[in-house]
Amino acid sequence: MKKTERTRVKRVPKRGLYDRKTINAILDDHFLCHVGFVHEGYPVVIPTLYGRSEGNLYIHGATSSRMLRSMQEGIEVSVNITLLDGLVLARSAFHHSMNYRSVVIFGTAKSIVGEEEKRQALKVISDQVLPGRWEEVRTPNKKELKATAVLSIPIEEASAKVRTGPPVDETEDYDLDVWAGIVPLQYAYGQPVYDPQLKQGQALSKSVINLPIL
Amino acid sequence: MKKTERTRVKRVPKRGLYDRKTINAILDDHFLCHVGFVHEGYPVVIPTLYGRSEGNLYIHGATSSRMLRSMQEGIEVSVNITLLDGLVLARSAFHHSMNYRSVVIFGTAKSIVGEEEKRQALKVISDQVLPGRWEEVRTPNKKELKATAVLSIPIEEASAKVRTGPPVDETEDYDLDVWAGIVPLQYAYGQPVYDPQLKQGQALSKSVINLPIL
Repeated sequence: MKKTERTRVKRVPKRGLYDRKTINAILDDHFLCHVGFVHEGYPVVIPTLYGRSEGNLYIHGATSSRMLRSMQEGIEVSVNITLLDGLVLARSAFHHSMNYRSVVIFGTAKSIVGEEEKRQALKVISDQVLPGRWEEVRTPNKKELKATAVLSIPIEEASAKVRTGPPVDETEDYDLDVWAGIVPLQYAYGQPVYDPQLKQGQALSKSVINLPIL
Repeated sequence: MKKTERTRVKRVPKRGLYDRKTINAILDDHFLCHVGFVHEGYPVVIPTLYGRSEGNLYIHGATSSRMLRSMQEGIEVSVNITLLDGLVLARSAFHHSMNYRSVVIFGTAKSIVGEEEKRQALKVISDQVLPGRWEEVRTPNKKELKATAVLSIPIEEASAKVRTGPPVDETEDYDLDVWAGIVPLQYAYGQPVYDPQLKQGQALSKSVINLPIL
């Protein structure tokens, strides 16, 4: 991917990665992004679900939402996706850090208008959050599709920033009697909670059974 | 907390909460925030660690970082903190949702300059990420403090947005043969990974032992 002034990683440049494969792998490992845009001169940051397909990131929301309305007008957005992978515990406070994988995308969102395209993009988001769920449920009808705005953000001006590995301390600090290392961190699923209104005897969905549950 | 046009929850207003107790409880349950600001007219969103003490959110970074430099000039920021609590699986694709707790703060960051104040604010961040760690490690020396910029953001113009509970489906969809419910989601710690350069026999730190590890 072409580096731009905006995507070039300035702090700790060796952590910057610009190849599409790395960027896509990070994007495919999560489904929550933070979208930033400028509204009446001030910055707004909104958390929202996303899905990736090919070179596009899809997000959605109610047709009536402020974010979606603003963005449909073709304003510039900045999207950040961050996965925390671990606490990096050094011997000195100063060298404490996090292991993480992060992607930033700059671009202009495009509204998806065609009914079939919209349906496809919503399936992409659904598949990213829970693979297989789309096939199990009642898919959107015309009225629901109309109430849903879907936006596509091209993954063109993007970069990744990744930290891995153990802490790095000052030479003289390696002698300190302090435990150092990594405490891994990840999102984890818990035991499914049945809807109190579930039909009696309704079996758990395959999409949920397939999740790595604690 | 006083609602403003910016903090008033517009989409699903019943999910909006404005009391300081709720906002603080959410802030105290996480340590990753996304800070948005406007740089040369375009939006930038940066993930960073934070700590809360009283009515302030503290963030830090290298004195040389673009974010910190921009923000020290007193520009407006928007901060979002989001905790995902679960996948909300409905009988229709349209009514799928997430359970989450989210806080948004608008404000102007203030640079912390005094050495002792800086040290205190860094302890707040450290305590938020891993309680007790600060007391175990070598604390910052003058040179390290100088290389670290610390900012304080007042939690004054803020609101929370929270979704809890089971899915809500269309009346006619409750008859469908589809499992519905919640799959809980949370950040979880894994088994500590020892630094390969650790002194032989160095015991695990108490701060790590105290973590709820899977």
